[in-house]
This record gives sequence, structure tokens and C-alpha cells, in this order.
Amino acid sequence: MPIYDVTGIGNAIVDVLAPCDEQFLTDYKIEKGAMTLIDENRAQELYKAMKNVTEVSGGSCANTMAGLASFGGKGAYIGVVAADQLGDIFDHDMSALGLTYNTSRYLGSKETARCYVFITPDGERSMNTFLGACTELAVEHVDHILISNSAVTHMEGYLFDKDPAKEAYFLAGKIAHEAEREISLALSDSFCVERHRKDFQELVKGSVDILFGNERELQALYETDSVDEAMRIAGQTCKIVVSTRGADGVAIIFNGEEIFVPAPKVDRLVDSTGAGDQLAAGFLYGYTHGMSPEASGLLGVKAAAEVITHIGPRPLMQYKDFLQE
Amino acid sequence: MPIYDVTGIGNAIVDVLAPCDEQFLTDYKIEKGAMTLIDENRAQELYKAMKNVTEVSGGSCANTMAGLASFGGKGAYIGVVAADQLGDIFDHDMSALGLTYNTSRYLGSKETARCYVFITPDGERSMNTFLGACTELAVEHVDHILISNSAVTHMEGYLFDKDPAKEAYFLAGKIAHEAEREISLALSDSFCVERHRKDFQELVKGSVDILFGNERELQALYETDSVDEAMRIAGQTCKIVVSTRGADGVAIIFNGEEIFVPAPKVDRLVDSTGAGDQLAAGFLYGYTHGMSPEASGLLGVKAAAEVITHIGPRPLMQYKDFLQE
Repeated sequence: MPIYDVTGIGNAIVDVLAPCDEQFLTDYKIEKGAMTLIDENRAQELYKAMKNVTEVSGGSCANTMAGLASFGGKGAYIGVVAADQLGDIFDHDMSALGLTYNTSRYLGSKETARCYVFITPDGERSMNTFLGACTELAVEHVDHILISNSAVTHMEGYLFDKDPAKEAYFLAGKIAHEAEREISLALSDSFCVERHRKDFQELVKGSVDILFGNERELQALYETDSVDEAMRIAGQTCKIVVSTRGADGVAIIFNGEEIFVPAPKVDRLVDSTGAGDQLAAGFLYGYTHGMSPEASGLLGVKAAAEVITHIGPRPLMQYKDFLQE
Repeated sequence: MPIYDVTGIGNAIVDVLAPCDEQFLTDYKIEKGAMTLIDENRAQELYKAMKNVTEVSGGSCANTMAGLASFGGKGAYIGVVAADQLGDIFDHDMSALGLTYNTSRYLGSKETARCYVFITPDGERSMNTFLGACTELAVEHVDHILISNSAVTHMEGYLFDKDPAKEAYFLAGKIAHEAEREISLALSDSFCVERHRKDFQELVKGSVDILFGNERELQALYETDSVDEAMRIAGQTCKIVVSTRGADGVAIIFNGEEIFVPAPKVDRLVDSTGAGDQLAAGFLYGYTHGMSPEASGLLGVKAAAEVITHIGPRPLMQYKDFLQE
């Protein structure tokens, strides 16, 4: 029996959230809906322009782990922060959720990563990430004990923007499969997939058991306009492919069979940050607790529907309440 | 003509907000509705226990200045943060609002202050403050140029917990009055008033033109069960006394005459943090723009009604929109 349901590997990031209007995105040339990597100068320029700012721990995979913990799941996390106050905040927030988080702090001059999240009135989020200490994640952080004792090791695509992290992912895949555990991957962002298509294809083919992606991400992975085609290709090597469809719900391929789980209606979309992350959280909780793909998908869409009703990428309620419904 | 409408002097604090239930307050012996000063050990103990944490800039007077800026007022702020990341966040948030904030950073070993805010389901907030670098505020920070060029200098009672800050307040009063400007004081907290009653009485009598306090604070100031009696005593030396009455509205004594301004109805109280601060913001904006006490009070209750509908102590809308109504 594995000790952990899920170990996550990801970019350990503090989110810096601010509301803004469409004009602001135009004025500052921010690509709407995308995650763009930025350098320190650009980070300073954008931060200067932000008003009504809130700081919360973020990071795609870390958000998923927060959701898993909220369902009552047992999780661990691997990701690098610096020995600074933002690192303390990130560390606190993981530990407070009951997650095991032991990754050694980076002690050099880079600061803990932050993601500037611009939230437009339509609830869409446009992200600009300064990776800072995150970029230090490498094979030495891949904890053999955690991974070989976790039913699933969940990884986020964003880390593929740095070569040492790519190596870490392939190593994690090797460790997991040698221990007869599974690997799950969230593609994260279609532009990131395009930047590293070949490496993503290799990882998905050789190491990934459960693949998460929205339509654009899956299409980008196989350079096709058809998401069905993309899911079919992924499904040839992955046990499960989970394709998120926004407000519609989620399409799942499991053992070659396609299942569709509709999403609950959301009255008021406030901030879509974390929707995909919490979808993965619900699905992985269900999956690691012996539920069917359909039941797992239902937990996923419920969690995603909750997180978009408020500012911030992590649950504000106990997701374990969904288990009684 | 003064250059600034208001210069604020206060504890420069980053708020660390988390929802909790009533049991949590009992378990951790947190006094409900009060602001309690805590030491570093207690700060660590409480922080460890907090989940779903959000960080935002706070500090009573700084919140008032944020509100003033949101009305379109011109403001400056005096308060001490450390040369750390939380200090950077506080500094950024003041500057982003267009406020002048030039107080030199504290360079010693104390960190920027934080206030752990526990929000119960009834919207009440219970605050535990670790003052850190705040306690360094002293006469050398009292900026003669800012104060003598501001129509009003607004101060928060919380700073009275440290003697060097008391001295700074008396000096600010002297500078303001020599320049024919006015001093405003928010009593902040009835327990703080009780801790320093004599000094508060002396300050109010000798230096304060506009006094803000809720019923308990005003009663504590003069050791009386009657808020009317307390307002009458304060009104003998203060030009204006503003007594907040929660959901009912605000009572104002101006030139010996009492005015009552009812508060707008709020559908859903989410987090009462910042209500008194934004009341003062609205009132001071109106007052420094030549409005009547009644019109100023109306801006105050509108701002207070907005800030309690969401998490966090600062406006999420432009208060200048209230000016068109």
C-alpha cells in the first residue's frame, strides 16, 4: 500500500493577484489567458502598475495538492523556494494543509518565484511568471522515497521551461514505474507545450499514465485541430486522458472508452485561476481512492466549479463535503 | 492651500487573513473582536495553525489612506516597515495607490509587522498583531513638511502601545497646529484605550480636532457607560466627534450639535476588517473637500458598507464612484 495518495512536483510560486480592465492588458501588452514567463525587470514594471493586490500561495501543482488535501487525501510536494519571507509563506501554506513538504530551500540570490495574475471582469486570468528560485529544481530534488511510496506522482507542464526540471521529470517517471506506481501530468499551457512539444511527446509516451489537458493543450501536443484525434493518440500510451472543456465539463478516455462528465452550473465566475488545478485534484483524489473515472471526474468538476467562484487558486471550503453528496 | 488632504501616521502592517470557526478562537484563546498584541513565539504558534491564508497590506491608518486615495484624495503616509519582502509589499501597495510614502526602512533584525486576522462565519474579525518593525516609529519619523502641508493629519490609537510613538503623536499635533492644520485620531480599540487612558485623554484634549471611536472606545476613554456623555466630554475640546454605531450608522457631534447618518443596508457581511478605517476615509475625504459633516458621514458609511462585503480591509472598487451619487 502506498503511504501517499499523490506526490506533486511543480513550480513553487506565490501568486500576486490584482483585478484589472481589458485596457490594462492592452497597455502593458499582456497576453490574455496565457502564462507568460517574464524576467526581473518586467516583473518590476508590472508589479509597479498593479493595484489592490493580494498575495496567496499558488503554483499549478501546489494548488492541486491543496485541493487533494481539502478532499482529505494524503499528499506530498516537491518544489523549490528561496530562504525568504515569500518562501516562508509558501512553506507554511503547504504544511498547514497537512502536506509533506521537505524540499531543501535554495540559498542563492534568486528570490521565491511569483506569478502576477491579472483578473479581468470576465473572470479570465492572464499570468506573468517570474520563476526565480523555481528554476533550480533538478534531479537532486526528486525524492525517491516520496515517489516510490505514492500511488500517483503528479507533475505540471510548466516546469518543462527549464532543462534541469525536464531531467527531473524523466527520473521521477523511472522511479515511479520501478516501484509500480503511476505518473500523472498536467500539460498546463498550450504555449508551453508548443515551446517543448518533442520533449512533452516523449514524456507522455514513455512515462505518463494519466494525462490532463484542455483542448488547446492537447491539440498543441500533437499539432492537430482535432481534440478527439489528440485524445486518441494520447490514449494509445496513457491509461487515462482527461480533457477539460471549461464550463461544459470534462471528457475522459479510459481503456479506449470515452466518458463525458458535465460541469455544474456556476452562477458567477469571479476568477478562473486554479480551475484546471482543482479539476486534477478532484480526479486524482477519486482515482487514488478506487473510484470510477466518471465518479473521479465528477469530483473534479465540482472542485473546479468551487474555485472559480472566488479570488484565489485554492479551495475556500472543505472539498471532503463533496464526498457525502 | 495644503498640498495633501490627509497625512496618516500608523502601524505599517501586512495582514495575514484566514477564515476560522468559533471553536478555533476558543482552542487558541483568541479574544473575539479585539486586537491583541502578541510576541514572536505566539505569532509562530498561531501562524502554524492557520489555513487558507491570504496576505494583503493592512494597518488601520494605512487602510484609511487607501480609502482616501480611492475617493481621489491626495494623501501621504508615515509608518515603519523593515527592509524585507513584506516591507516591499506594503511599500508597493501604498505607492500603487498614488500615496506619498517615504518613511525610511528600519534596517535592524525585526521583521515587518503582521496582523493575524481570524474571520469567523459571522464576519467578525479577531486580530493578533506582532508589531515587529512598527515599534521603531518615533519622533524622527514625524515629517514636518508632510504634516504642515496636509489639511488633516490622521493618527491611529494602536500606536499608543509604544512610548516613542506617543511622543511622535504629540509632536505631530504641535507641528500641525503651528501650521494651522488639524489633527484627527481614531481610537482604534477599547482595550488599547484602557491600557493608555490618561495619555489618550491628554492627546484628545490638547491635540485632537476630529475624534473617531465606536461606542466602547469612547466609553473606555472617559470611563463612562454612556456614549452620549463620552461624546459630550470629547466635544468640549474637539471640533468634531464621530461615533460609529456598526450597522446602524454613525453619530456626529459638530459644533455642539448632534447629527445621525444611517448606514446603507448590507446584504451579506463577509469580513468586517477595515469598516472603521473606511468610515474614517470617507469622512475625511468629505471634510477636506468642504462637505458638511452629514455629507462626509454619508461617504464614510458608504465606504464602510463596501469594505465589509469582501475579504480584506481595503476598497475593491473606486470610492470616487460614490461622489457621483
